[in-house]
Amino acid sequence: MTVRAEPPRDHAGMEVLGYEECLRLAASEPVGRIAFAEGGDIHIFPVNHRVVDGLVAFCTADGTKLAAATEGSIVAFEVDRYDAASRTGWSVLIKGRAQLADESTVQARLATAGLRPWRKQLPRPEWVVILPDVVTGRRL
Amino acid sequence: MTVRAEPPRDHAGMEVLGYEECLRLAASEPVGRIAFAEGGDIHIFPVNHRVVDGLVAFCTADGTKLAAATEGSIVAFEVDRYDAASRTGWSVLIKGRAQLADESTVQARLATAGLRPWRKQLPRPEWVVILPDVVTGRRL
Repeated sequence: MTVRAEPPRDHAGMEVLGYEECLRLAASEPVGRIAFAEGGDIHIFPVNHRVVDGLVAFCTADGTKLAAATEGSIVAFEVDRYDAASRTGWSVLIKGRAQLADESTVQARLATAGLRPWRKQLPRPEWVVILPDVVTGRRL
Repeated sequence: MTVRAEPPRDHAGMEVLGYEECLRLAASEPVGRIAFAEGGDIHIFPVNHRVVDGLVAFCTADGTKLAAATEGSIVAFEVDRYDAASRTGWSVLIKGRAQLADESTVQARLATAGLRPWRKQLPRPEWVVILPDVVTGRRL
């Protein structure tokens, strides 16, 4: 007889997801949201992302996002999926430092993973990578 | 002959959405994400929300979200919808001050709008309302 352990739960009763499961789920959705503070203001932007070797990467032409990336800001990246009918879903939160992906090795990894911007004409395309410090997830 | 004006676009070429359209779209999705800064850290949480009389309201039992709300923090609330096949979508960003919805009139409005938490057993259910200062939206 196989005894299956109950999944760990947080104080609110939600299932706590492990690191590998978080990255797998984050990679399963094409769009996530990046949030960061800047000059006392909070920004959130949806981005078309990929998960490459445990890193989150996305392409942007937005000046504000780029500024945050250039400055090596701490950012929070969130991905989720919910089903309104069953009222179930999951969310994954990845926190870390954003930086421009100017290294040829990172660019090569992105190209291999098929990361292409959704907008066809990006004025100033730049790749941004988030180096994760904390990866957490919950399932409802 | 009817001449239809081109919709306004931002510097990245995305269509800029008007206030009413932003609120209509924000109300059309059951889940949004709230972001705020706290002690040098950035938080993002998905929430099941409603738009009531131009306010964003959601129910939570999470201590961190509640703390932000209690302190009257400035928060950013984001809602989006994307279609991976056509690579189109929209996002709406609502910034403002969060506060606990302890006034009976607000509670009554929420109840009228049918706002119920997805989780069946919330340890400490609290209603939070975001009073919007800035409402912006883009369509890709």
